[in-house]
Amino acid sequence: MASIPVGILGATGMVGQQFIALLADHPWFKVAYLGASERSAGKAFKDAAAWRLPNRLPDDVANRVVENAAPGTAPKLVFSGLDSSVAGEIEAEFAKAGHIVVSNSRNYRMFDTVPLMIPEVNADHLKLLDAQGHSQGWKGRIITNPNCSTVVIAMALAPLRQFGIEKTMVTTLQAISGAGYPGVPSWDILGNIIPFISGEEEKIETEARKILGSLGQGRIEDHPVRLSATTTRVLVRDGHSCSMSVALQQKPTPEALIDAWRSFRGRPQELDLPSAPKQPIAYLEEANRPQPVLDAGREGGMGVSVGRLRRCPLFDYKFMALGHNTIRGAAGAAILNAELMHAEGLL
Amino acid sequence: MASIPVGILGATGMVGQQFIALLADHPWFKVAYLGASERSAGKAFKDAAAWRLPNRLPDDVANRVVENAAPGTAPKLVFSGLDSSVAGEIEAEFAKAGHIVVSNSRNYRMFDTVPLMIPEVNADHLKLLDAQGHSQGWKGRIITNPNCSTVVIAMALAPLRQFGIEKTMVTTLQAISGAGYPGVPSWDILGNIIPFISGEEEKIETEARKILGSLGQGRIEDHPVRLSATTTRVLVRDGHSCSMSVALQQKPTPEALIDAWRSFRGRPQELDLPSAPKQPIAYLEEANRPQPVLDAGREGGMGVSVGRLRRCPLFDYKFMALGHNTIRGAAGAAILNAELMHAEGLL
Amino acid sequence: MASIPVGILGATGMVGQQFIALLADHPWFKVAYLGASERSAGKAFKDAAAWRLPNRLPDDVANRVVENAAPGTAPKLVFSGLDSSVAGEIEAEFAKAGHIVVSNSRNYRMFDTVPLMIPEVNADHLKLLDAQGHSQGWKGRIITNPNCSTVVIAMALAPLRQFGIEKTMVTTLQAISGAGYPGVPSWDILGNIIPFISGEEEKIETEARKILGSLGQGRIEDHPVRLSATTTRVLVRDGHSCSMSVALQQKPTPEALIDAWRSFRGRPQELDLPSAPKQPIAYLEEANRPQPVLDAGREGGMGVSVGRLRRCPLFDYKFMALGHNTIRGAAGAAILNAELMHAEGLL
Amino acid sequence: MASIPVGILGATGMVGQQFIALLADHPWFKVAYLGASERSAGKAFKDAAAWRLPNRLPDDVANRVVENAAPGTAPKLVFSGLDSSVAGEIEAEFAKAGHIVVSNSRNYRMFDTVPLMIPEVNADHLKLLDAQGHSQGWKGRIITNPNCSTVVIAMALAPLRQFGIEKTMVTTLQAISGAGYPGVPSWDILGNIIPFISGEEEKIETEARKILGSLGQGRIEDHPVRLSATTTRVLVRDGHSCSMSVALQQKPTPEALIDAWRSFRGRPQELDLPSAPKQPIAYLEEANRPQPVLDAGREGGMGVSVGRLRRCPLFDYKFMALGHNTIRGAAGAAILNAELMHAEGLL
Repeated sequence: MASIPVGILGATGMVGQQFIALLADHPWFKVAYLGASERSAGKAFKDAAAWRLPNRLPDDVANRVVENAAPGTAPKLVFSGLDSSVAGEIEAEFAKAGHIVVSNSRNYRMFDTVPLMIPEVNADHLKLLDAQGHSQGWKGRIITNPNCSTVVIAMALAPLRQFGIEKTMVTTLQAISGAGYPGVPSWDILGNIIPFISGEEEKIETEARKILGSLGQGRIEDHPVRLSATTTRVLVRDGHSCSMSVALQQKPTPEALIDAWRSFRGRPQELDLPSAPKQPIAYLEEANRPQPVLDAGREGGMGVSVGRLRRCPLFDYKFMALGHNTIRGAAGAAILNAELMHAEGLL
Repeated sequence: MASIPVGILGATGMVGQQFIALLADHPWFKVAYLGASERSAGKAFKDAAAWRLPNRLPDDVANRVVENAAPGTAPKLVFSGLDSSVAGEIEAEFAKAGHIVVSNSRNYRMFDTVPLMIPEVNADHLKLLDAQGHSQGWKGRIITNPNCSTVVIAMALAPLRQFGIEKTMVTTLQAISGAGYPGVPSWDILGNIIPFISGEEEKIETEARKILGSLGQGRIEDHPVRLSATTTRVLVRDGHSCSMSVALQQKPTPEALIDAWRSFRGRPQELDLPSAPKQPIAYLEEANRPQPVLDAGREGGMGVSVGRLRRCPLFDYKFMALGHNTIRGAAGAAILNAELMHAEGLL
Repeated sequence: MASIPVGILGATGMVGQQFIALLADHPWFKVAYLGASERSAGKAFKDAAAWRLPNRLPDDVANRVVENAAPGTAPKLVFSGLDSSVAGEIEAEFAKAGHIVVSNSRNYRMFDTVPLMIPEVNADHLKLLDAQGHSQGWKGRIITNPNCSTVVIAMALAPLRQFGIEKTMVTTLQAISGAGYPGVPSWDILGNIIPFISGEEEKIETEARKILGSLGQGRIEDHPVRLSATTTRVLVRDGHSCSMSVALQQKPTPEALIDAWRSFRGRPQELDLPSAPKQPIAYLEEANRPQPVLDAGREGGMGVSVGRLRRCPLFDYKFMALGHNTIRGAAGAAILNAELMHAEGLL
Repeated sequence: MASIPVGILGATGMVGQQFIALLADHPWFKVAYLGASERSAGKAFKDAAAWRLPNRLPDDVANRVVENAAPGTAPKLVFSGLDSSVAGEIEAEFAKAGHIVVSNSRNYRMFDTVPLMIPEVNADHLKLLDAQGHSQGWKGRIITNPNCSTVVIAMALAPLRQFGIEKTMVTTLQAISGAGYPGVPSWDILGNIIPFISGEEEKIETEARKILGSLGQGRIEDHPVRLSATTTRVLVRDGHSCSMSVALQQKPTPEALIDAWRSFRGRPQELDLPSAPKQPIAYLEEANRPQPVLDAGREGGMGVSVGRLRRCPLFDYKFMALGHNTIRGAAGAAILNAELMHAEGLL
């Protein structure tokens, strides 16, 4: 059944392992290539890296020999979970060589002709790919998904665009998996919070405007929303929580907001893509939700949860949003991007 | 040396135990009475409750018999760590009977003639006590300290009053000790956050305005700042962190804010009160501070720490503030209140 | 398809919720009755208790009205997750009234005619039921599964009976879910271990001998192994780890032990029961396994994992064993018991 | 007052920072040299490493320039918290150059003429130093303290030597600080235990016999106790817990054991050394003690706590022992060794 071979760049890292886990039973894509650093190249995957997820490591992946991440033997479609310190160069090499690089790395997200996609939100941004080859001198293409906390924020805001979003203040409480592996030392985070994540606030403040922006004349017009973000690390395994306050031009009722979230659907749902959540955004009525342990895994980790909607004394509304950072915010996001491209005939 | 006998109401609870710990070597106050519920009355303290702090339980307290919390045998000065479900009635009884009740409970905080004190911030609010006896019909008095997260927020804002604080948006990350004992079940909080604390947001939004307000004509004029709070629980033992954004009328430089915090002193420092921190507010330069584990215990838990000052794209400035919730935010706050009263000749 | 109606006693508790989760898609059993205390009776389940598992609460259970746990309207087969403080009386009432009570509670485990079952280990102990009705004066029957840590220990020992187990020293590191809900306060366990679990050591030392014992003349002859247990609580969500050392009469090679574990199969595997793990015991080669987060969920939580086999300087061998305490050690254990009874024609 | 200059090798690591913290107010020793790797050399300490302890970093240490760890400018007395991968070579260089190296590293612990000290237990082993210079060709000397879990075990066993200790089975639950910094990734340990610590079990099984051994003819006769250890990592900040079972030749009463622990004193208490705990071993009566959070800090972290004494069905007695691993088990242990040497005129 799974007939499209795919490669994974950065296969041994946290996001790479999540790619492997999510593709284990994928109906379309089959892992046929594992790329990593020279240190891992030449070893069977199971010897190159400890498997760190509770999911079962598929036998064929366990025994597959990891290759040095470079174009050549890789399939046309490659997922990249590379660290940003090397992703810039390696992804460009793959794109030049004609690969479709579906990347989770930040390096190309803000490039004019690189789509920064959340398929439910801006499927039409795929059109940027038309001009990418010419502008970048690439035979292949690079398509990206947002930073893991930005996905949650942009998903929660997308259905509110109809009300005219002017301002968004957000404080995040982010899971340790967002820092990769080995990531945050236990000594630093046990019984503690770390009120700083390098570069994260800037990503939220810029990426969200592109994602929510509109396509016109072959380029993205940023959404006019102004954002202010504070990002913190907490002792949570998976799931980024976002305390958000929004100012809206129109003055909708709370019911109108809840309805906007609950009824929100996009192109992945229309196309019934394999990784698409049935309901992209759930609004939870309980006073103390969403919670990472209980809600981050909704719809296989692809659903975003919102709760605690109430009036804000300063802006219009306050609420909490939550999403699974290594699935909806990373590997799952990239896979959904690739599914969209396949369904739209772009692979 | 310690010559003033004091009582503790709610002695077996989380805040009650913190009172005992902080008073163990106090130069002025000596624990001479332990009041608790009927269930504990008649037992030695060590048999009435498990001691749950790393500090050593003083032998004389361990062996002191707990009494049913009612006026009669208690000293004139009593500290109250009573649960709010019973504090209203019991504290009033003590006040009627002539006691000075220095309370950590929320029940009387917003009463017109009850001071809601942070001695560094509003020592002059003690004057409310003049009218309290008459207005309440009490022979004694009740004086209160704020909610544990409000203390941190109000301390961080107090030095900024000179710049004209208009708006404050805050998201808290609060420690489990703030929920008392047994408090938050480990099942609910392990690897999790709980984005809701009952009644907490309302307390912040109202108490802070009274604390920062000015005394005039025997009553408090609330400070005009408008606040919006979101409160969450995280797996931290002690220390409430507050992600804050402020809009200021004047447009001070960052250096002016930092200088305002660092140079902030109040009546407790003037009077050199035993529990007064030398520097009530420290500004930390490191990019990833303040952190609960490293900073909540500064100055014996009585110092508030601020860090990460930066421009806010929506208001004027953003920063993080942190304080020890059961010391600066509860038992230590009450003790400092009592020290102030003693030094001002009000005991 | 699921055609056998079942009831759950103690439905709102930690084990009761796990029963609901495991029976959500069961091919044979369908939840048709929820029994709990008077406090919950008369309310829809979703209003009687907060749902505390990441699994989705089935709609029909959510809306089912909870009844006061008493015989009458309940189906013949009832699972009991009742607290031991009430299980003794209520389970007896159900048994008297003709119900088959498949209990997770400790109250009847050591009764002479009550089977204490691990179906892979002692399926023949079901024969005790023949005499139970007469000896107890019950029209129905009670069948039990062991304490949650005992299951892991007895499973790990069962395949070693062939080598003549003489002595077993064990220290456990047990998950918080084993204490029920609200269970262990977060204040007590954050960054801590609690080296005591009331009654747990005694249960291990007695129950294991009955489980491993042999049926003769309508009664169980205890296995002669002598056990010594120390039990501790650690900050783990699910999964009890057991550090074990065993003295064996025969002197098998390490390979013989590993082979004994890996090839171990029992009646549930022969009968292909729905909840039976394909491989009841996995031996893990990695030096640092088994680990609760990575391994407790193996085979849907019904598989026990063993690792770190090595010579013991005092006895013969040392190893670590791990199992999921609320599935293999509680609700899943009871369901497997009921499946065995059904397959053996005893329902 | 503090007049003896000392150096710290490996000053930036976890144990090095603990040395700095413990020496901050030491009455005899004053930090006059910080040695670390080339990467840190030439920088002020505060720039070479983040300070990771809640204790205040002394200003003079913060501003002291770190040097490349090599003999030359260092004081005669140096404490070593070096990683064992480099400690062998560097400590030997210092010893050759005439320094007294008081080391926490494992490299020389089992050398015939190197004392492996717990001053309360084997102060007479200092005599090994007489022969060390000749046997090793060193002008200076090396003296060591045990592995962090071995200290707790050997302390708990030492008072029982009078009863003839034959066998000891132990399972440890060890804190993350024992792994240094960055040490254990939070991803690996959150809600988890790791049932393996490389090399730790071997250290316990060999070091304890030397520590408890007797000095005769200029060499140590190992104590005949046979030990079997299993070591695990748990999510505890500081404090190693040891579940122990012992076989004794004599058959003392439980009261005799408790009395042996409580009355245990050694040379540090006789000499009233600055870091000596008044009571080296406390026996706690509460059923659920000792606990790391509550008890590891007893006597400034230099006291060992024992509890839960009960009969063992296999050996004679079972109990739990606990000690602070980076104080009693590392930096504090080394400082006590140096204090003993000073008091005995060996510096």
